[in-house]
Amino acid sequence: MAAEREDGVKLIGLWLSPFVLRAKLALNIKGVEYENHEELNTWEKSELLLKSNPVYKKIPVLIHKGRPICESMIIVEYVDEVWSSERKQILPVNHHERAEARFWAYYIDDKVFPRLRDHVSATTQEAKEKAVMEAAAALQPLEKFFEQSSKGNSFFGGEDIGFVDIALGSFLAWITPLEKLDGIKILRDDNLPKLTTWAQHFCSHDTVKELMPDSDKMVQVVEFFRLKFSTA
Amino acid sequence: MAAEREDGVKLIGLWLSPFVLRAKLALNIKGVEYENHEELNTWEKSELLLKSNPVYKKIPVLIHKGRPICESMIIVEYVDEVWSSERKQILPVNHHERAEARFWAYYIDDKVFPRLRDHVSATTQEAKEKAVMEAAAALQPLEKFFEQSSKGNSFFGGEDIGFVDIALGSFLAWITPLEKLDGIKILRDDNLPKLTTWAQHFCSHDTVKELMPDSDKMVQVVEFFRLKFSTA
Repeated sequence: MAAEREDGVKLIGLWLSPFVLRAKLALNIKGVEYENHEELNTWEKSELLLKSNPVYKKIPVLIHKGRPICESMIIVEYVDEVWSSERKQILPVNHHERAEARFWAYYIDDKVFPRLRDHVSATTQEAKEKAVMEAAAALQPLEKFFEQSSKGNSFFGGEDIGFVDIALGSFLAWITPLEKLDGIKILRDDNLPKLTTWAQHFCSHDTVKELMPDSDKMVQVVEFFRLKFSTA
Repeated sequence: MAAEREDGVKLIGLWLSPFVLRAKLALNIKGVEYENHEELNTWEKSELLLKSNPVYKKIPVLIHKGRPICESMIIVEYVDEVWSSERKQILPVNHHERAEARFWAYYIDDKVFPRLRDHVSATTQEAKEKAVMEAAAALQPLEKFFEQSSKGNSFFGGEDIGFVDIALGSFLAWITPLEKLDGIKILRDDNLPKLTTWAQHFCSHDTVKELMPDSDKMVQVVEFFRLKFSTA
């Protein structure tokens, strides 16, 4: 592992970001040691971040051998390819399953993430309930896909965490505190039974337990953002 | 090549779609024969399309060995992986360059496509000029990236068409007729000199020439859409 550090692996991130969590999960699954560059917050961006991701100026950025890689799922795929001989593969080996995993990761960012963002920024009870309903609706196709891809195992990737688990599981960093704060369940046995059980398995996984942001701290983050939105 | 047909390669598409063009370019570069399932238009969707892409109900869909693959750049990557021993690689081999290519393909769909869509739907002179200005601004980072990635060659991919060429070049199916119709150039020597030359190289490439929709027909398509938008 020391060799990895010498190669220079650095992650520009922030503890509260689900997108950064994706990169951390991938690095951890592959057993890659890295230097963690923690940003101050989401609005004061470091020189290193601005220089490394001049187009989007967003975290996470992975720097490897002095070259930046941007966009969370592109980082996950990069980590999977570069450290391909280490531990398990994150993307499936089968071509069709790889394409499916990429499709659902795209779907999660395209359809699930915006609903969760709405939920985080919801300040009225009505807006919160609407966001929960829409998030649950966006998760329905994933409930179906889980049955097909997990083949009776605990994860989308089968026996262990894979590409879709990382893409969706990272948002449990928001879902769990939102459920706690608002007292409305997004993942419920009567609505999304498979994803509800999957979320429990995901959060109990050793790699995830180590990296998932503390939900009480995340409750404070959501409260802070809502205060910011409501006074903006 | 006959073997490919026996394996069952079918593309659900429509001649006017830049996204379908991406899939066709990839299949053609790899020399894969396929059955073309042409949709009637963009709003009356075939049973085959609805069944094959129940989530987005959008073209293109590639069907291979009876299993659908959706989303244009995911199809391109799938074709590149499955027919990996044929002709040239579409994605670079180098890990960092692969991540970069994926990043810029993402950028094109995220930042360039919406501006071109605005341009297609623009019905006033003011809206057209604004869309052109914004499209050109969105292309500036790609102008810069071209210099770095082409290494003095004609394409983003170097000597031949690669992943980013396909992602961006497919939109020349819109850009060329829009320029013709409105008489306002998006790609100009004084503004985007490298991309202007690149576009000429791209459209002169044998594979592209064969597949690029006829620009006079595309002018009619844009006129039809604008009529639809203005009376909607």
